Amino acid sequence: MRSPIDIYLADLYDDLVGLSAGTTYQGIPAMADADNSKFAIAMATVDGHVYQIGDAELEFSIQSISKPFSYALALDDIGLDAVDEKIDVEPSGDAFNEISLARNTGRPANAMINAGAITTISLIRDRDTPRFERILDHFSAAAGRRLKLNESLYASEALTGHRNRALAYLLRSFDIIETDPTPVLEDYFRACSVMVNTHDLALMAATLANGGTQPATGVQVMSKDAVQRTLSVMTTCGMYDDAGAWIAAVGLPAKSGVGGGLIAVLPGQLGLAIYSPALDEHGSSVRGVAASERISSDMGLHFVRAARLGRSAIRENYDITQVPSHIRHTEAAENLLEEFGERAHIIELAGDLLFAGTESMVREVSELDEWVELVILDLRRVDEVDTIAVEMILQLHRELTAEGRTLALVQERHFEALESLRSFSSRNNAVEWAQSTLLQRHGTPEMMPEKVAVRDFAALAPLDEADIALLESLMEETRIEDGRIVRRTGQEFGGVYFILSGKVFTSSVQEGKPVRHSTLSAGMTFGEIALGSDGEQSTRVTSMGQLHLKVLSAEAITALEAENPGAALRFWKAIARDAYTRVESAIKDASYPLQ
Amino acid sequence: MRSPIDIYLADLYDDLVGLSAGTTYQGIPAMADADNSKFAIAMATVDGHVYQIGDAELEFSIQSISKPFSYALALDDIGLDAVDEKIDVEPSGDAFNEISLARNTGRPANAMINAGAITTISLIRDRDTPRFERILDHFSAAAGRRLKLNESLYASEALTGHRNRALAYLLRSFDIIETDPTPVLEDYFRACSVMVNTHDLALMAATLANGGTQPATGVQVMSKDAVQRTLSVMTTCGMYDDAGAWIAAVGLPAKSGVGGGLIAVLPGQLGLAIYSPALDEHGSSVRGVAASERISSDMGLHFVRAARLGRSAIRENYDITQVPSHIRHTEAAENLLEEFGERAHIIELAGDLLFAGTESMVREVSELDEWVELVILDLRRVDEVDTIAVEMILQLHRELTAEGRTLALVQERHFEALESLRSFSSRNNAVEWAQSTLLQRHGTPEMMPEKVAVRDFAALAPLDEADIALLESLMEETRIEDGRIVRRTGQEFGGVYFILSGKVFTSSVQEGKPVRHSTLSAGMTFGEIALGSDGEQSTRVTSMGQLHLKVLSAEAITALEAENPGAALRFWKAIARDAYTRVESAIKDASYPLQ
Repeated sequence: MRSPIDIYLADLYDDLVGLSAGTTYQGIPAMADADNSKFAIAMATVDGHVYQIGDAELEFSIQSISKPFSYALALDDIGLDAVDEKIDVEPSGDAFNEISLARNTGRPANAMINAGAITTISLIRDRDTPRFERILDHFSAAAGRRLKLNESLYASEALTGHRNRALAYLLRSFDIIETDPTPVLEDYFRACSVMVNTHDLALMAATLANGGTQPATGVQVMSKDAVQRTLSVMTTCGMYDDAGAWIAAVGLPAKSGVGGGLIAVLPGQLGLAIYSPALDEHGSSVRGVAASERISSDMGLHFVRAARLGRSAIRENYDITQVPSHIRHTEAAENLLEEFGERAHIIELAGDLLFAGTESMVREVSELDEWVELVILDLRRVDEVDTIAVEMILQLHRELTAEGRTLALVQERHFEALESLRSFSSRNNAVEWAQSTLLQRHGTPEMMPEKVAVRDFAALAPLDEADIALLESLMEETRIEDGRIVRRTGQEFGGVYFILSGKVFTSSVQEGKPVRHSTLSAGMTFGEIALGSDGEQSTRVTSMGQLHLKVLSAEAITALEAENPGAALRFWKAIARDAYTRVESAIKDASYPLQ
Repeated sequence: MRSPIDIYLADLYDDLVGLSAGTTYQGIPAMADADNSKFAIAMATVDGHVYQIGDAELEFSIQSISKPFSYALALDDIGLDAVDEKIDVEPSGDAFNEISLARNTGRPANAMINAGAITTISLIRDRDTPRFERILDHFSAAAGRRLKLNESLYASEALTGHRNRALAYLLRSFDIIETDPTPVLEDYFRACSVMVNTHDLALMAATLANGGTQPATGVQVMSKDAVQRTLSVMTTCGMYDDAGAWIAAVGLPAKSGVGGGLIAVLPGQLGLAIYSPALDEHGSSVRGVAASERISSDMGLHFVRAARLGRSAIRENYDITQVPSHIRHTEAAENLLEEFGERAHIIELAGDLLFAGTESMVREVSELDEWVELVILDLRRVDEVDTIAVEMILQLHRELTAEGRTLALVQERHFEALESLRSFSSRNNAVEWAQSTLLQRHGTPEMMPEKVAVRDFAALAPLDEADIALLESLMEETRIEDGRIVRRTGQEFGGVYFILSGKVFTSSVQEGKPVRHSTLSAGMTFGEIALGSDGEQSTRVTSMGQLHLKVLSAEAITALEAENPGAALRFWKAIARDAYTRVESAIKDASYPLQ
């Protein structure tokens, strides 16, 4: 089906193609007779998908849109401070071709006006490789394809660029340009004469939106710092003397060129490019400005609207008594956990931990009752962890530790910056840790049984001693090494396995990747799930450390059913009850609020 | 415990309190001798929490920080266009006290320089209420407390403001100010002489960050449009001739005042305010600028860094064969759903549907195979749905419908704008709908049984005809009206309920609010979960429409156990197997990928 975004762009194109205002750039004959019926819009996402409409493959000269990219190259070549010495970052409020040099120093107001752009060229390294070659490589890397210089256009630019020639010598006279201005000026004219199409410009803009990494090729074309600075200057100076109106109406860092091209950048999201050769009095494409205003307001791209909402990153905050425990404890232990469980809190976070999310998270933790000993941050639904979030979490860790409290994390894909903290790969494991920690701190040794006797198994609770003794007499005892596969997926029901001591975990393969289910320990049973519909073991069971089992085999059960149906009946009833205890907690886990 | 953010601010305060550069504003004696040892930082979140350090309660005059708030008031009073006629939105690149009027028209460059700010005052309505009263009410509403005018300061401002008086008459001469300039000027001086503290300014800034709604009081002080315009102008003109350097280094819309105050705004997240009376050559607080730069870089607040990442909003995309069905179908129906299930896709979305999230969503849907008939968007994890998202979803709906395909939503808290679309409050319900739709379109009538005979119940599949006949003979038949409570939470095990036709849903009360669990229909059983550990009904069961049941009561089961242990044994074994079939799918649901 057609993408709604393509439909939107098609409608927008139809609405604006009629705009006949403006005139093509008259400065150069070659450009004066550009076909004003041409019109193209392209949007490139930060994952490299390009939507486009109109003559998006038609080539034209990049002109002033070269300026931000040359500027970024210079910034990465010699560093921000060195560039700042030569070029200021202040809006001039002047037209693109104004002189705008600081009175005494001759320092250009910014890199988006000609004086600053020419100076920029002089700052680009050319030791090993000819300067323009590096510039063309740089532009091409941002576009994601090999771009070409239009020699004849360059020739006429060079022929007619008297004003720029004057500027270059003026800059030289102030020692802003420290070398022969002629080759600098030639490379400036060449940079303006590079041919691009609207598709290229959208990807070049998306490279800025994407922190300097070309979205389609994945090549890091510019540093993050160079991008941040370049977008900042585009914000205040990109649209020449129209900058304020542009920010008010469109609210995106942007750059236009007299070739008819225009780019706008929504940091982190989108690169927008438009081509239409007729220009307004500021030297910007008439249809380009109109389309940008429409797209910004229709799609909510203005930096104020597109701003991330300071929504809380907190999904849930509850103590571990709220979590169905997957471990069976003695009654004494269960009672203690009922009482002390509220000393271990789990805070589930979601979304991005930038300033707002981080702030709400640290506030939530800071406001926990002081008798909360264990704080578990569940990061499984967190998408992004900014530097500030890392620092704040480490700070939380220090603060809590100083107070004799403990911070732990639950994370699936580990955030490296947080490697140093105690982490669990599932909430179950974190809860198990919290429970055993609380039992150690506040309980008695008996509450953490290394070993559970068959008669103490919760599953058999409904049975009387005689029945349990009978069942135990039918069990085979076995000890298993660490890391052994106890039950394989697909095996048919082999009996009920009672864990006397040690642990196992269950896993299976889903869509090609191993998926872990639950951890079972002393006092728990496994194997009976093979009784389920398909009658076979649906998960693999693997031992964790030394495992001590008693197994009531399928054969033994069959024998029991024949010899003592009454006992067998009570056994199955107990097993059914045990199963439903699990169904119950599973259903509660999967529930959702009523409307 | 201390909040890491308070700790951060305390460290920052210590780092910067030593800065002795700059001098207090000399224009007015009252202000010239401000105590330069005073220093305060405050940050207000968009939910109204304020972090502060230093002399945050110390009052000083708001001065030029009044300008954005007066501007917003004028914008809401007479509209953007009317204000634009009188005041441009372009950076002047001049100092705050420059004349900066357009050559022919006398139109001030922007509302942040004095000429523009004085003009702004003249545009504020004063028909019913005196103008300054409205201004003071407006400032107070943004601060969230009653602010006061400093009469004596106003007096000396009025006494010494010759330059501004000149400006006012100049503006009058151009008919930019259309009334007697004197009262306008007086109200301008009054607005500058309103006393605020750093805490106030942080909340006033947070009101701008929060789209015009005061975070603490919840009062809508300004319209969203006025806020967007005001923040845009603050971005390019807020820091006078330092605007470019400010955006490059701090990257936040901001405003400083010669009183020593400074505010910065991170749209959607944060209002920042700093007070320290010593000013730099631009008339901005020295410590204020230094602290802003530190906070912006430490906390990643620069608009380029704080930009929302264009991450995909898509969590999962799968067809309904991947979802454990909570409805039992006949084998023929199950087979058909196996074959046709891939024609119904569920796409789980998360986070915010602004441009980036919306784009990735519509792309995913657009790229589904054309034989996919049913598209279910699961919005339960979506936090925010922007206008663009609503339009794109409605557009998707139109496109899909045109192709004879169907769009449906899963949403818990309904997004009003999407009311018109087919919505389900749980994924289960959506899957049920998808299954019955596919069965109707591609199956035979028998595949959608209105009525299921006891012998066809999946739960009893392992039993032979004789056993089933025996059990059925022990059951009581009953018919129940719509909306009746069939089982109450807390009832002890009453037997196993077989649904012959109709539906029920199970629910319980969690943390005070009703929570719905699953929908059960013909061929399914309930009541046996009361066999779980606590031995009582843990959920309420309510009929949906006419309900036809057969019940194997607890008494009947007990009797069977006594009279025919063999059959009872097989019954319990079947029930256990059925339970484990459910445990199995529940565990699979709750599983997570291995590291």
